[in-house]
Amino acid sequence: MKFPGTVTIKEVGPRDGLQNEKAFIDTEDKIKWINQLSHSGLKYIEITSFVNPKWIPALADAFEVANGIERVAGVTYTALVPNRKGLERALEANIDEAAVFMSASETHNRKNINKSIDETYPVLREVVEDALEAGKSVRGYVSTVFGCPYEGAVEVEAVVRVAEKLFEMGIGELSIGDTIGLANPKQVQNVLHVLLKRFPADRLAMHFHDTRGTAMANVLASLDVGIATFDASLGGLGGCPYAPGASGNLATDDLLYMLEGMGIQTGVDREKLFSAARFIEEKLGRPLPSHNLQVARGC
Amino acid sequence: MKFPGTVTIKEVGPRDGLQNEKAFIDTEDKIKWINQLSHSGLKYIEITSFVNPKWIPALADAFEVANGIERVAGVTYTALVPNRKGLERALEANIDEAAVFMSASETHNRKNINKSIDETYPVLREVVEDALEAGKSVRGYVSTVFGCPYEGAVEVEAVVRVAEKLFEMGIGELSIGDTIGLANPKQVQNVLHVLLKRFPADRLAMHFHDTRGTAMANVLASLDVGIATFDASLGGLGGCPYAPGASGNLATDDLLYMLEGMGIQTGVDREKLFSAARFIEEKLGRPLPSHNLQVARGC
Repeated sequence: MKFPGTVTIKEVGPRDGLQNEKAFIDTEDKIKWINQLSHSGLKYIEITSFVNPKWIPALADAFEVANGIERVAGVTYTALVPNRKGLERALEANIDEAAVFMSASETHNRKNINKSIDETYPVLREVVEDALEAGKSVRGYVSTVFGCPYEGAVEVEAVVRVAEKLFEMGIGELSIGDTIGLANPKQVQNVLHVLLKRFPADRLAMHFHDTRGTAMANVLASLDVGIATFDASLGGLGGCPYAPGASGNLATDDLLYMLEGMGIQTGVDREKLFSAARFIEEKLGRPLPSHNLQVARGC
Repeated sequence: MKFPGTVTIKEVGPRDGLQNEKAFIDTEDKIKWINQLSHSGLKYIEITSFVNPKWIPALADAFEVANGIERVAGVTYTALVPNRKGLERALEANIDEAAVFMSASETHNRKNINKSIDETYPVLREVVEDALEAGKSVRGYVSTVFGCPYEGAVEVEAVVRVAEKLFEMGIGELSIGDTIGLANPKQVQNVLHVLLKRFPADRLAMHFHDTRGTAMANVLASLDVGIATFDASLGGLGGCPYAPGASGNLATDDLLYMLEGMGIQTGVDREKLFSAARFIEEKLGRPLPSHNLQVARGC
């Protein structure tokens, strides 16, 4: 197997993690937490979502969070934006990068965005154009790449079509999402073999969920074909919050443990990450489910 | 990456899982559980341990369990034996295979077996000789291959020395143990590259613990270099029983999910495995921590 010498970990906990929380974490605490993450060596943090607060009340303070955090040199601060209106607010809060999102499967796209895939493109195109014009970069997310909760199997050509459209619009990077955590390493390599024929490895990131325990193996399969950017959520925040141990997002600290052990550089300080994890655990009022936090708690 | 077409899963839950339980599972329930496992398509089950009950009271009924279970054709029933005395009782109970064990690190061996590594060899040699004479095969376990809780790093040459001694005695297969779950995939391949120069792949099995979340990635790294036998414990039984979600043994059902998805044959029926998991969860009075059982419970 081949491994890159350096990997970029993109921390999505403040957005993909917190958006699943029923409890509202105080704006001041979100800001403190993101500031801790900023000083942990992470180079990229997705801090919030400018989706209508009606849909994600947990992140209703997107503007205040984006406005209130310390901006540490060398860290890119990004936020999810669903449309032009969201982008306007995100730009007012001076985010560095906008993240747009859609699904590779029609039904999931409709359920999530309330539009068909074809209807979604012009909306995202406006966002990408406006963001680029404002001097910001744009990241794309494509969901349900390895399977859809409504449709089952997803054709890799459907993923390629979405990827081509988004890159054509001007996104800098595409994050390939295993939204419901069912991918396996062979499937990951099969999909990446197709994508890597059309897009360079340094424009692709992988976004794994550990729902069925395959996330770390899927990371390994991705590293082996040249992928060096991974989304992760500190402590595995973002799973099913009412089942201790239930796994959602790949945990940043578990990913870091494996990469460090393999001699792959990330720039992230494990102790600072643990300290940030303990802070948000206290605010959430429950332990986070990642393996390495459990080990750190002495079990 | 290369993957074998078929993998043998060796179920160690009744021994490596139950031995960590404070509560004594009734002999009748152990027998019922093992019988369910026998009908799930698993071809190998480690059913108990003939260690002195003073050390593992949870398995004090080793003889009754080994004697009481149904023997399904095509399934190998094995038990851990520490010495000649343990073997005698195991043979009386008509086990198919004896499993002997020792550590690659001196301190762990002393703490676990109360002997130095050199003092351990003659004890195991007696067991292997007697077992072979009785027409039984013998499996070896080598622990702390990827790191020792007392000594830290373990030299691969220490592992090779133990492996050579055990194969020379006449064991059929050696199970390579990441006892405290700290291996990473690069380390796994490095160790296996050395071992595979001296021993054929079909004489080696991997025994991973998921303590730090790397077990499935370590399986993938092992498959890639030709290993096709893995120990696992249903539901991840054998972790820290008082922290829900804390992971110990690699979970059979998680391993099965990944292998099935990759098109690798195991012969194991997932539904029958889930049904056996629900049975033992009920007897334990708590849910098991594996990812796929959590998904099956609807989280």
